[in-house]
Amino acid sequence: MRYPGFSRRSFAGGAAAALTAPAALAAPGLLASRQAADTTAEQAADTAAAEVRRITLYAEELPGGLLGYGLAPGEASVPGPLLEMYEGDTLVIDLVNTLDVEVSLHVHGVDYTIDNDGTRMTDSIVEPGGTRTYTWNTHAPGRRGDGTWRAGSAGYWHYHDHVVGTDHGTGGLRQGLYGPLVVRRRGDVLPDKQFTIVFNDMTINNRAADDAPHFTATAGERVEVIMITHGEFYHTFHMHGHRWADNRTGILTGENDPSRVIDNKITGPADSFGFQVIAGENVGPGHWMYHCHVQSHSDMGMAGIFTVTDRNGNVPGGPMPHGGTGQAGAASGGSHH
Amino acid sequence: MRYPGFSRRSFAGGAAAALTAPAALAAPGLLASRQAADTTAEQAADTAAAEVRRITLYAEELPGGLLGYGLAPGEASVPGPLLEMYEGDTLVIDLVNTLDVEVSLHVHGVDYTIDNDGTRMTDSIVEPGGTRTYTWNTHAPGRRGDGTWRAGSAGYWHYHDHVVGTDHGTGGLRQGLYGPLVVRRRGDVLPDKQFTIVFNDMTINNRAADDAPHFTATAGERVEVIMITHGEFYHTFHMHGHRWADNRTGILTGENDPSRVIDNKITGPADSFGFQVIAGENVGPGHWMYHCHVQSHSDMGMAGIFTVTDRNGNVPGGPMPHGGTGQAGAASGGSHH
Amino acid sequence: MRYPGFSRRSFAGGAAAALTAPAALAAPGLLASRQAADTTAEQAADTAAAEVRRITLYAEELPGGLLGYGLAPGEASVPGPLLEMYEGDTLVIDLVNTLDVEVSLHVHGVDYTIDNDGTRMTDSIVEPGGTRTYTWNTHAPGRRGDGTWRAGSAGYWHYHDHVVGTDHGTGGLRQGLYGPLVVRRRGDVLPDKQFTIVFNDMTINNRAADDAPHFTATAGERVEVIMITHGEFYHTFHMHGHRWADNRTGILTGENDPSRVIDNKITGPADSFGFQVIAGENVGPGHWMYHCHVQSHSDMGMAGIFTVTDRNGNVPGGPMPHGGTGQAGAASGGSHH
Repeated sequence: MRYPGFSRRSFAGGAAAALTAPAALAAPGLLASRQAADTTAEQAADTAAAEVRRITLYAEELPGGLLGYGLAPGEASVPGPLLEMYEGDTLVIDLVNTLDVEVSLHVHGVDYTIDNDGTRMTDSIVEPGGTRTYTWNTHAPGRRGDGTWRAGSAGYWHYHDHVVGTDHGTGGLRQGLYGPLVVRRRGDVLPDKQFTIVFNDMTINNRAADDAPHFTATAGERVEVIMITHGEFYHTFHMHGHRWADNRTGILTGENDPSRVIDNKITGPADSFGFQVIAGENVGPGHWMYHCHVQSHSDMGMAGIFTVTDRNGNVPGGPMPHGGTGQAGAASGGSHH
Repeated sequence: MRYPGFSRRSFAGGAAAALTAPAALAAPGLLASRQAADTTAEQAADTAAAEVRRITLYAEELPGGLLGYGLAPGEASVPGPLLEMYEGDTLVIDLVNTLDVEVSLHVHGVDYTIDNDGTRMTDSIVEPGGTRTYTWNTHAPGRRGDGTWRAGSAGYWHYHDHVVGTDHGTGGLRQGLYGPLVVRRRGDVLPDKQFTIVFNDMTINNRAADDAPHFTATAGERVEVIMITHGEFYHTFHMHGHRWADNRTGILTGENDPSRVIDNKITGPADSFGFQVIAGENVGPGHWMYHCHVQSHSDMGMAGIFTVTDRNGNVPGGPMPHGGTGQAGAASGGSHH
Repeated sequence: MRYPGFSRRSFAGGAAAALTAPAALAAPGLLASRQAADTTAEQAADTAAAEVRRITLYAEELPGGLLGYGLAPGEASVPGPLLEMYEGDTLVIDLVNTLDVEVSLHVHGVDYTIDNDGTRMTDSIVEPGGTRTYTWNTHAPGRRGDGTWRAGSAGYWHYHDHVVGTDHGTGGLRQGLYGPLVVRRRGDVLPDKQFTIVFNDMTINNRAADDAPHFTATAGERVEVIMITHGEFYHTFHMHGHRWADNRTGILTGENDPSRVIDNKITGPADSFGFQVIAGENVGPGHWMYHCHVQSHSDMGMAGIFTVTDRNGNVPGGPMPHGGTGQAGAASGGSHH
């Protein structure tokens, strides 16, 4: 199953066309020489140099009262495009505001000077029809002069509007002005596929309950999930049949890593985390639910399906279950990368 | 103080009678040669082989509108029986549905193929009067072929119905169809006593506010707490006078373990964690409250007592405080293992 | 910018006058020889001996219907004074109740016998006009006789009333009877400045929305944030431009520390955590917002400013933004230490 722009590779390729600047959007190691290597983890090249890349983001209206960010005119999506950096990289973003209200771009986790804050208070927002440049920097970990350890920028972060509706962007977030940002450390394991799941108020990725995002992978593929929460409510994110480490990468660093392994995690607005699973590892193919485990939330439709097929594309129980997640309609629809 | 089936040993002994298969339910190291050894931690035998055990679970009605799982007819309880495995073990469970509605068994954390999911979507539920077999597998940690670390199954997990009331089991959970599952790593420290505390909506273990579970241990005993949340609300679990590490086991692995030590933890539906404390360590005997720290929740009765006696069974302030937890009635009642 | 009692040094100095006992309140390493050393981390002296210190806390009424703890008559504040210990220290506190209702002192994280619990159930509360002595002990980590690791007392803890309004202190907490407690391990890095941020129901430190606490530091200063939640609601704590490790100290222990680095954290009543940041590190000076990221909470005013000045006291955009945090009024006011 392949949605437009769904796989990492097609995403990266599509994005490249929209770049306004010399370097590719995706981190160097991601684009170079990725062959089908289902269960073989590839390491990012340690020798890759830090890069400065420039992209344009367009804030646009979408059908159904949604707003979105996109890498080219007419390509806005909810969530916005997955942005990826390596520690040390700089990303320069020209935000074009095609809306009739002010919009902005506020980012979590990375480095930026105060004029890139994306808030009204700091006069770093964009008037209707205007363009503003935001610069995000990142850094590798290392030791400070005083001997303490300075954390690197690596993490599962996100960006969002901070001005539509209220000065905290409550309207912008509600309508879809948010997206994922992954910052990797040199050497981090790269995924074969990536899915972004945003619990935004009582929706997943602003989808209606009967149209929850449906993700598909082949057993053995290394799948990265980027999980973000927005809005008003707390949630608990649960996946059937798969679990992850509650640490930086979602992968234990080895036998001495004391992190808890979990398959359910409480999360609140603007929290984000990510992890990688080997699709179907130890459990095989199937239509695996993922959902909010707050009972009323899942009952009202905060549930989707992560389908793991065998190597021939088959799934026990057939191609798609009916009424599977507890809602009237079957899960359907795809993600944006 | 000894409730029927309250202590680990009596639980394991009682359970054995209900087993339908060759191996004992409890993990091998747990049953073998446990003498009173209050402050001496015992290590699980590294040489124990992985086992396949088979048990029967009965889904039954209980007084007061409750439902429960039990290891023998007429023995259902809320929470359901504590199930324990070692990494590598397989547990085969024949679920007998004595209810007049469909029921199921969904588990967190361990490995199972999709036909063991316990969901309507996957046709893995049990009709009234029927029986269905669920198989849970576990695995030890290790390195994958690609060099990444595969986490083991060890953890403080849980099982629950996924179909009574709604397709997410909201009714089944509300009425008591849930229980704890502990998966241990070879070498994990074993407890002297185990308590399961489930914050289920505004109850503890579905007990009324004036009948909150009361747990008792002797100072120096190694007490394991398995904490699970279900239902609709978030909670914060707090214990007076005792604290734990926020990692896999709740015990720091040593001086380099960076995990936070806490005595209060936010938790949402289907979250679970566990830890061990030495009863009264550094603080001595007493009636120590445990409660939800959301103020309205504790005020409405989400509070119980963990009584630590001295070696002679005495407690400062006498055998039982009155109105102790802020509710009209004194805490009373016991746990199920 | 210097508020009365705002900086650590002036706090410690002021506090000393109120001590009723031989030893200074602040931990030994903190008071000794702290010169201006903005970016140089100082290590606590490993040779310092454990101390027994005695202080008096006064529970007092404050204007606006608030209650507070203070180190001298007429000096109560909300939050109460920052108390600091090193592992191994004992703190003896004489609580003087100047209120016309019973009050108490319950502490998280440290060691105390049951008669120091601060609860009605244990008869450890203070009648109006009375005084009661509470003794808090702490301990260093180490290995138990059974070989398991016993965690030390170090942590970002807190104390609060447990009896005003309800037997869980709901009224006392709502009105301000809470404060921070930091227990350090020998060798922990010491901060230049410390800020306490308490999300108490829908307020920050019980301040009105247009009067949220405003914190100021010079770029390069090592700033410690102690973050506590109280009351009824969950929140997500977010800081702009700064981030921390989700571990014991908020500082990664080195390159092998797998802890997540975050800038947003879900938290519920009685949760507490802390961390240190280098003010403006990698981002420079500015008026950096901190706020609850639950959208309705920030929109209603749960937002303040952390101002980072350059070495000359200047900030991009001028001394203070207007309507900065999304509320009508500008942030203003100071913290208590």
